[in-house]
Amino acid sequence: MSASATPTFPPHLLDFQDWSRPQIESLLETARMMQEVLARPVKKVPALMGFTVATVFFEPSTRTRISFELAARRMSADVVSFSGAMSSTAKGETYRDTLRTLEQMGIDAYIIRADAAGVCHQAYRWLGKPILNAGDGWRAHPTQALLDAFTLLERLGSLEGKKIAIVGDILHSRVARSNAELLPLLGATVVACGPATLLPAHLPGAHLTTDLREALQDADAVMVLRLQKERMDKGLLPSLPEYIAAYQVTRARLAWARPQAPLLHPGPMNRDVEMEGILAEAPQSLVERQVANGQAVRMAVLYHLLVGRKRSEG
Amino acid sequence: MSASATPTFPPHLLDFQDWSRPQIESLLETARMMQEVLARPVKKVPALMGFTVATVFFEPSTRTRISFELAARRMSADVVSFSGAMSSTAKGETYRDTLRTLEQMGIDAYIIRADAAGVCHQAYRWLGKPILNAGDGWRAHPTQALLDAFTLLERLGSLEGKKIAIVGDILHSRVARSNAELLPLLGATVVACGPATLLPAHLPGAHLTTDLREALQDADAVMVLRLQKERMDKGLLPSLPEYIAAYQVTRARLAWARPQAPLLHPGPMNRDVEMEGILAEAPQSLVERQVANGQAVRMAVLYHLLVGRKRSEG
Amino acid sequence: MSASATPTFPPHLLDFQDWSRPQIESLLETARMMQEVLARPVKKVPALMGFTVATVFFEPSTRTRISFELAARRMSADVVSFSGAMSSTAKGETYRDTLRTLEQMGIDAYIIRADAAGVCHQAYRWLGKPILNAGDGWRAHPTQALLDAFTLLERLGSLEGKKIAIVGDILHSRVARSNAELLPLLGATVVACGPATLLPAHLPGAHLTTDLREALQDADAVMVLRLQKERMDKGLLPSLPEYIAAYQVTRARLAWARPQAPLLHPGPMNRDVEMEGILAEAPQSLVERQVANGQAVRMAVLYHLLVGRKRSEG
Repeated sequence: MSASATPTFPPHLLDFQDWSRPQIESLLETARMMQEVLARPVKKVPALMGFTVATVFFEPSTRTRISFELAARRMSADVVSFSGAMSSTAKGETYRDTLRTLEQMGIDAYIIRADAAGVCHQAYRWLGKPILNAGDGWRAHPTQALLDAFTLLERLGSLEGKKIAIVGDILHSRVARSNAELLPLLGATVVACGPATLLPAHLPGAHLTTDLREALQDADAVMVLRLQKERMDKGLLPSLPEYIAAYQVTRARLAWARPQAPLLHPGPMNRDVEMEGILAEAPQSLVERQVANGQAVRMAVLYHLLVGRKRSEG
Repeated sequence: MSASATPTFPPHLLDFQDWSRPQIESLLETARMMQEVLARPVKKVPALMGFTVATVFFEPSTRTRISFELAARRMSADVVSFSGAMSSTAKGETYRDTLRTLEQMGIDAYIIRADAAGVCHQAYRWLGKPILNAGDGWRAHPTQALLDAFTLLERLGSLEGKKIAIVGDILHSRVARSNAELLPLLGATVVACGPATLLPAHLPGAHLTTDLREALQDADAVMVLRLQKERMDKGLLPSLPEYIAAYQVTRARLAWARPQAPLLHPGPMNRDVEMEGILAEAPQSLVERQVANGQAVRMAVLYHLLVGRKRSEG
Repeated sequence: MSASATPTFPPHLLDFQDWSRPQIESLLETARMMQEVLARPVKKVPALMGFTVATVFFEPSTRTRISFELAARRMSADVVSFSGAMSSTAKGETYRDTLRTLEQMGIDAYIIRADAAGVCHQAYRWLGKPILNAGDGWRAHPTQALLDAFTLLERLGSLEGKKIAIVGDILHSRVARSNAELLPLLGATVVACGPATLLPAHLPGAHLTTDLREALQDADAVMVLRLQKERMDKGLLPSLPEYIAAYQVTRARLAWARPQAPLLHPGPMNRDVEMEGILAEAPQSLVERQVANGQAVRMAVLYHLLVGRKRSEG
């Protein structure tokens, strides 16, 4: 795999603040190569042989953890899994002590999911090792945004001048935040839409609206976010029926967007809540393609953080 | 390993409806070869190198999961483990979405344990990939029946014309159902025995009786099932003391069967509940042999589903 | 790796009753070689290729489990993890049945953590396979003591005639018990210190005192134990403020020990409870070094139990 055209990369993927457009394009190019590996009968390369990667999930998420584990193992890395639920954090140990303890075991890279924003940034300060943010609080989920961008590029060819609508609970969504950061870097315009109670005051990189029609009108792609029913139950406005009436993405409403505009969802879906269930199987749905591309993108990120950078340092 | 004599196999092991006697005998023959692998100091072969197998346990069972994991890894497959307890199923995702998500990660075969019957059949319809049923609700647990058959054959030579008694909570037992399906295919007669409240109205492949003496009389082998104490506590008849008085398999009662009739139990045992505890260590107890044979049988099934079939397709 | 100078080793590491000083010194010498392996970019050797090791944790401890898993995998062993929480022990299966079940799957060595003393001894009697005690109740935690000794030797050169102070909840500490057993074998004197309610009546290998100054005075090294806050909350004397006032190891009190006396803690720490938080980062703190050395020591123990002994048998 050639990372030679792009001599330097950030030592971490916390968010996209330290990433330039050429670096991201190079990363996505590597992801395309990884996609070819994944199309082979034997989906395994020795790229990370001898490296040990830790998944450190202070917040449980089996599917994301498995996606990262498989990505690492398909490049022949060893993987150890630390999950906060079974850990001594419950016994009063701080994040820092947990991570420093793992560090003493000779981990080469950390894939961290945290229930609080900032843990990944801190982790890099504490450890000075490659850190991959697998989702921290409401703030960022950069590999999700990368796989969304990769999937959109695959379908649309380019994101230059494209309008991407993101619909749902924007306020609490790290996926919305990361996409609003990444997609404009690749030339797209992002419109984020939801009820006023689920919109932040300001979302860097996105235009905000409470008007679903405005958001979907002529959109080149539509990304629907999972609605946390728990939040609805807690009396936050609107009620679930009100939300569905005004914001559920249906076949009828999707007609406002461009013909065949691809439909994305980070999963897991609440069918017939944030999206008409049948749309998940519609031809324009890229929901499963997103998951498949997640493998390729996560392999590419791990490869660049562990090997791509080292080679350029050498 | 030669699967050449048996050109085609079902693409799944859901139950035994699609399996013929020659196919099962060929599978058990492969299991005997795997047993030889397991007798070596280095219990590892490269048969499934490059394949990724997922264990998907919607119902927890550490020992079964470990048995399958080891079987896969000893043939050099990669294994990822999904457990429902830690998953997003709790967050409203359906079985289908979970499995389709894993599918997008490039899994080659699925080992599924579910709390509901039919999930494995559905999984095959959804994914079209090799599915191995590791126990679904009350309905089927085919690798348990295969290892029971393998263990019985090892001891008895043949099952032709043999009488096998199954004693305990037949109603709720997938082990009983799968054995009643498999053992007659290999020539045996199955008698299933328990209190009337723990017998189904009808059990295909087995004769039913509430009379323990009738069941054990001249039996060539006796299989004792685990009694779910939880059920007894819920006021289902009989009470635990009543059950023990009438149905506990004791040394005295075992004398009704043929001399040295082998004694099986799928584990884990409630010592001195369904079976006199000391019998677990008696010479005719094959309880531990069953577990050891489980490794060989599970290796054989995975091998046939992943490699044996592919070769014949080529 | 040469284990040739020391022809025989105990078949288990339950505690140090069966270990002689030359055997322990040979083990620590192997650990030094493993340390060199861990300093390489590729921290992996084929020493245990083809062996399967089980971690069996009847009491959860993620960091200890990961440390052992990595140690085994870095020597190319396969590892399966059994955790009591997710197991059928909850369903009434005994320790014995769980271990015998695993045994039938062809495990070569067992790393066992138990909530009750004696489980590891029993395990050796039941299985006759290499058993590594990863902590059993209050009784023993021998690899922790070995890594403590290894870390002290690294800093102090020799333990001959050295005074080691152990401070904290001695009564409930398997770390204190194992260190009191091991360190005197290597020539050290151990003084164990805590409030009267947290001292045992007798601790073989150690002098007991309630006087912190007496314990720390001229100590060559100080080991601080984790205070289980749960116990304090349960009304056991002293209260947390009383404990801190009288027994917290602070910079001021550490001055009673020899200059630059190394400071150890088995982790995880309660910062500002048993130890002034800032001391964890002080130059004399070996807390992180302990964890790093844990890898080397655990690799050495597994190597000796699995390969070192076999070679000498051959």
